Amino acid sequence: MLLRGGKIAAVGAGASCADAAVFDAGGRLMIPGLVEAHTHLDKSFWGMRWQRRPAGPCPIDETETERRNRREPDLNTNRQSGRLAVQMIKMGTTHIRSHVDVDTETGLASIEAVMAMREQLKDVIDVEIVAFARSGLLIRPGTLELLDRAMALGADVVGGLDPCAVDRDPKGHLDAIFGLAQKYGRPIDLHLHERGEMGAFSIDLTIERVRALGMQGMVAISHAFCLGTSDSNQTCRLFDDLARDRIALVITAPEASAAPSVLGCIKAGVLIAGGSDGVRDSWNPYGTGDMLERAMLIGLSNNFRRDAEVELALDICTYGGARVMSVANYGLAVGCDADLVILPGETLAEAVVSRPTDRTVLKGGRIVVRNGELTFPID
Amino acid sequence: MLLRGGKIAAVGAGASCADAAVFDAGGRLMIPGLVEAHTHLDKSFWGMRWQRRPAGPCPIDETETERRNRREPDLNTNRQSGRLAVQMIKMGTTHIRSHVDVDTETGLASIEAVMAMREQLKDVIDVEIVAFARSGLLIRPGTLELLDRAMALGADVVGGLDPCAVDRDPKGHLDAIFGLAQKYGRPIDLHLHERGEMGAFSIDLTIERVRALGMQGMVAISHAFCLGTSDSNQTCRLFDDLARDRIALVITAPEASAAPSVLGCIKAGVLIAGGSDGVRDSWNPYGTGDMLERAMLIGLSNNFRRDAEVELALDICTYGGARVMSVANYGLAVGCDADLVILPGETLAEAVVSRPTDRTVLKGGRIVVRNGELTFPID
Repeated sequence: MLLRGGKIAAVGAGASCADAAVFDAGGRLMIPGLVEAHTHLDKSFWGMRWQRRPAGPCPIDETETERRNRREPDLNTNRQSGRLAVQMIKMGTTHIRSHVDVDTETGLASIEAVMAMREQLKDVIDVEIVAFARSGLLIRPGTLELLDRAMALGADVVGGLDPCAVDRDPKGHLDAIFGLAQKYGRPIDLHLHERGEMGAFSIDLTIERVRALGMQGMVAISHAFCLGTSDSNQTCRLFDDLARDRIALVITAPEASAAPSVLGCIKAGVLIAGGSDGVRDSWNPYGTGDMLERAMLIGLSNNFRRDAEVELALDICTYGGARVMSVANYGLAVGCDADLVILPGETLAEAVVSRPTDRTVLKGGRIVVRNGELTFPID
Repeated sequence: MLLRGGKIAAVGAGASCADAAVFDAGGRLMIPGLVEAHTHLDKSFWGMRWQRRPAGPCPIDETETERRNRREPDLNTNRQSGRLAVQMIKMGTTHIRSHVDVDTETGLASIEAVMAMREQLKDVIDVEIVAFARSGLLIRPGTLELLDRAMALGADVVGGLDPCAVDRDPKGHLDAIFGLAQKYGRPIDLHLHERGEMGAFSIDLTIERVRALGMQGMVAISHAFCLGTSDSNQTCRLFDDLARDRIALVITAPEASAAPSVLGCIKAGVLIAGGSDGVRDSWNPYGTGDMLERAMLIGLSNNFRRDAEVELALDICTYGGARVMSVANYGLAVGCDADLVILPGETLAEAVVSRPTDRTVLKGGRIVVRNGELTFPID
């Protein structure tokens, strides 16, 4: 493979150039950069002391714990988002979609901190920012105006959250986020934890708006537990509707609930991306930021045992994510950006199950990680 | 902690002895040896070249692939079971329950090979062998007689399999395995993949026999998907029945299906152990033999986010397994066997989520792994 100007210039027999530096991959595997399509960079404790999670049993308790934690002077969002992004780079991720909290307590501080981090790391990672009303949108007056300002400031995606279960007003919530998306010409990513009929209703309302506004290909739904907890007729119909209107799913297996069948989605033509969700934060103690591990977890959770199925789980964490995030020039073909991961393994399936850490990562043709070690300085 | 004669002789202030060798754990964590309560040592490809898994979509296709693989001269059961057991030792496991296939094609060859491995490694690991009619019991005439011979040869546990779904004769199957268990005075471990009402029926029939024969505390059910796929009234009743008759569950999360709620089981008083299931075999391409990783997967699959919950997942992979396997003298108290794991981590929950590999493992007071490296020679 010949790289030139940060792109793949040639592959195979014609890929030679007299004055090029040669990197011998030694028979290892090459995949395009891993794509982290759902995480929360702004609130990770990565690299900090262990934070106990004594919160109560309800999700809202965790939101409360989190808001309390964020007020601690030690949780420097700029530093922490950078730490987790760098860990993800080490693991071979070249593109990240991060939800970033916007609420009436912190205002736009987290958005600004992650935008500053993005600027600091712009040569080594692409970061897409979702302005995310984590504490609710309409139930916390002032939040919608903050989301609007976040989009004006440079957030890339409008982030919604459980229109029924959290915001208690599905019409109001969806009209608000679709309105913002229309105003800024940006996509939507909707956190949807609602199960069964309630979640299916929220998806129906979302589909109606996508169709009415011609926003096909611009909306993703994260989690979508309802697609694993509705009856099978309804699920089949929803899969077909999502495929028709090119509404993508983003999954973070194993989920806290029954989750959409990946094979069912793929067969219906629904686009799927994968993500780590929170990594070592108030909500989620787990995670390593490794999208190969996520591919394994997606495979395990979907009973993927055959090689082709395990490779499909990996595909979700590479090409799937790139399509959902509309990453241009992605892949291993001539003309694609040279965002590449080289790693040991006999086959792609073996790489997913063994998750070797001695990876070499290229971003725009430049080696940013060599055999698991960063090649750039970090603060 | 003072160790003497392979046991914990004293803990705390009184644990000093003038002539004892001193091991400074350097502030690391100590847990009792990890317990692998459900695996299949006899068919792992661990350390071999990657084996593609092109099998068809039905479970029986995998059984066929597996029997074909086992006929390959390269799959040396003695060597492979030893390789996987040694990998498990490296990860801190001190006790293993392994199902070992018995069928009319291989006869007792796998049992004999694993028994020989057990003898070879007897100083570094305890291995309990389940004689397992993987290809069916009554549907393959001659298998019951082979199981009987396996028990006579020294297998520890009678292994059943899906009395309805595979053997097509739940009464016949359960009468046969309970009969063998009675004949040899040994416990039962029943693989139960059956879902919903069918699985609940098999559990009901099992409970009836436990009660009629007074076999409380001697029966474990592995997987038990039906407890995750029945209606909630039935599930609650079954949990209570299992607790009353001390029938344990062995789980291998994430399962291929909705699975029993760990918190539901614990609250009802049902004993739970954990296992890796197959590791890199014809059935399962995944796995590392690491019970800390399994604790993480149990935690992830049960939405365990609080520290106490993550510690509960670890407890399932230590004390839970020891109780299900009736391991005597297990734990960190004075008088317990000195089967110990020392590992970095700020808290137990942190050890589960970060899964450090530089573990030091003691078996019977002897260091068998030092900072991730085996201290004993292997063939």
